[in-house]
Amino acid sequence: MSYTRPLDLKHGRVDLSHGSGGRAMAQLIHDLFVRHFDNDYLRAQNDGACFPLPAGTGRMVMATDSHVVSPLFFPGGDIGCLSVHGTINDVAMAGGKPLYLAAGFILEEGFPLADLQRIVVSMAEAAREADVPIVTGDTKVVEQGKGDGVFITTTGIGVVPDGILLDPRRIQPGDRILVSGYLGDHGVAIMSLRENLSFDTAIKSDTAAIHGLAADMLAAVPGLRALRDPTRGGLAAVLNEFASAAGCGIVIREKAVPVRDEVAAACELLGLDPLYVANEGKLVAVCPAEDAEHLLDVMRSHPQGRDAAIIGEAIVDPNGFVQMETTFGGRRMVDWLTGEQLPRIC
Amino acid sequence: MSYTRPLDLKHGRVDLSHGSGGRAMAQLIHDLFVRHFDNDYLRAQNDGACFPLPAGTGRMVMATDSHVVSPLFFPGGDIGCLSVHGTINDVAMAGGKPLYLAAGFILEEGFPLADLQRIVVSMAEAAREADVPIVTGDTKVVEQGKGDGVFITTTGIGVVPDGILLDPRRIQPGDRILVSGYLGDHGVAIMSLRENLSFDTAIKSDTAAIHGLAADMLAAVPGLRALRDPTRGGLAAVLNEFASAAGCGIVIREKAVPVRDEVAAACELLGLDPLYVANEGKLVAVCPAEDAEHLLDVMRSHPQGRDAAIIGEAIVDPNGFVQMETTFGGRRMVDWLTGEQLPRIC
Repeated sequence: MSYTRPLDLKHGRVDLSHGSGGRAMAQLIHDLFVRHFDNDYLRAQNDGACFPLPAGTGRMVMATDSHVVSPLFFPGGDIGCLSVHGTINDVAMAGGKPLYLAAGFILEEGFPLADLQRIVVSMAEAAREADVPIVTGDTKVVEQGKGDGVFITTTGIGVVPDGILLDPRRIQPGDRILVSGYLGDHGVAIMSLRENLSFDTAIKSDTAAIHGLAADMLAAVPGLRALRDPTRGGLAAVLNEFASAAGCGIVIREKAVPVRDEVAAACELLGLDPLYVANEGKLVAVCPAEDAEHLLDVMRSHPQGRDAAIIGEAIVDPNGFVQMETTFGGRRMVDWLTGEQLPRIC
Repeated sequence: MSYTRPLDLKHGRVDLSHGSGGRAMAQLIHDLFVRHFDNDYLRAQNDGACFPLPAGTGRMVMATDSHVVSPLFFPGGDIGCLSVHGTINDVAMAGGKPLYLAAGFILEEGFPLADLQRIVVSMAEAAREADVPIVTGDTKVVEQGKGDGVFITTTGIGVVPDGILLDPRRIQPGDRILVSGYLGDHGVAIMSLRENLSFDTAIKSDTAAIHGLAADMLAAVPGLRALRDPTRGGLAAVLNEFASAAGCGIVIREKAVPVRDEVAAACELLGLDPLYVANEGKLVAVCPAEDAEHLLDVMRSHPQGRDAAIIGEAIVDPNGFVQMETTFGGRRMVDWLTGEQLPRIC
């Protein structure tokens, strides 16, 4: 197709015609999405992408995540790479090897094309690095004031090898709880930016695809009970979900939970509890007690699990309470988040 | 989990806590989404849904669509059923049997929970009727004024049987172009509502899942060249996409294109051209000339293809132009839509 004039990626803005199904939309898709995501599935320009049925006899997993993070650009990442990492991680937390991604964009009229390009390039790099192509997509445009720049919904599919059965209902008293590294970085990076706080050390989002780490862990300990990435609601939400699904209690030790000093300090300033703050490149794992040390070694030998720690264990408790032994020797309840602590964190 | 108070589905409104990852979000998901979508995949409440790898040796297809239609409720449907139909149809247009859907919701703070429930019930009914379950999802909430009620992104996956190869690049001069019924109903229903027009006969959206019709067509004529649903950009966009992919021209006959009298009249009033108006329950098919009459019979014997018609054919034309023989005997170009004719139609 020939276009009347090239897409002005320097000074141009999204307008309603970019969502119309006409020439302007075709141009946006061709010059921006197809160009940067760069694969044959997208180049075929059908409404869906076809690919071979995965070989083998395992199960498949499908996960979707809408991303509305604000601001769109933050230390350590942006909505583009975040939307790729988030969905890859959801597939990986089900024990799946992520294969393909779909991306749906909801753009606000007036959004600078230069910013959109920056986001698309970031998605493309994240997808390439993770080796999971974005094979199909969709673009809609809403009037100014009816959106907020850009929202991105990504969906991923993957294959779960035979023999892997991750299900929090399998957690039993005595099982150990592990985390893969420092908690709270993503949420605190976003909130510091919003509140215009600056610290001596810049706190960066931990956004990353951690399917490689998850695969190493599953290869070493196939009997892993459950994996989950502590995003919205943080570690507290994951532990409560686990306890509630398994019908047992969980106790963690405050001093074993890895939190960076600067994140702890920022949390104090912002009135946040690191246990409830979102992470975008971490995981929580539960395994039988006898596998815990081996699993920890495997995690620590992966770059994304270098700071992994065993933080607690499942206990007998028909109430399904989550508790924390504090540094001062007491115990406190770690309940579900009840209000909205951090809006639009991912 | 126990909730402090039940979800007020009569007078309640979406607030930021419904997207927080805490107790309020868990309650919304449980009381609304899990309750109405009602399947074991969702009840497992993991971040992704697991299902068996489809048997066989075919290919898979994945399609995604973000839905931002305004208004949310319209004659013949709403954003809920539309978001289910749209993605099922994209999977079907690739020759796929749709298997599973994922749904991502972006809700605006203050949106009435009663309206959300109505939309969720409509999605659930559409999914049940189409026999394609919604197996996983995500919910985000944005502040008032940063969204527009609700946006829904659905993603579908399906299996394409061996031997089916739908690709507009396979279209050859002489091939026949068919449509499955009256064009323009969806777009005109939405625009009439927005412009507050009323007609003697209410014009209803044609929103529907047409994977059953597509399956019948593929079973009867496996050599079908291409299928596509004429949504945004209408028939004109599909024909131009086909011509451009195939490197040939297309000629259609105006009097063969099925348009209801009331839709034609409304288009005149609204200044719209029915060729560019969106449809949400129709398809365009291309097949070898010798299969055309048989394909037409098969389409007409399906309730969703009752008004099917052969509207034209592919011709030799290295320019890839689409033309229409008008009722008055002339020929006019049917170009891509250049401006934004109908914003937020789907």
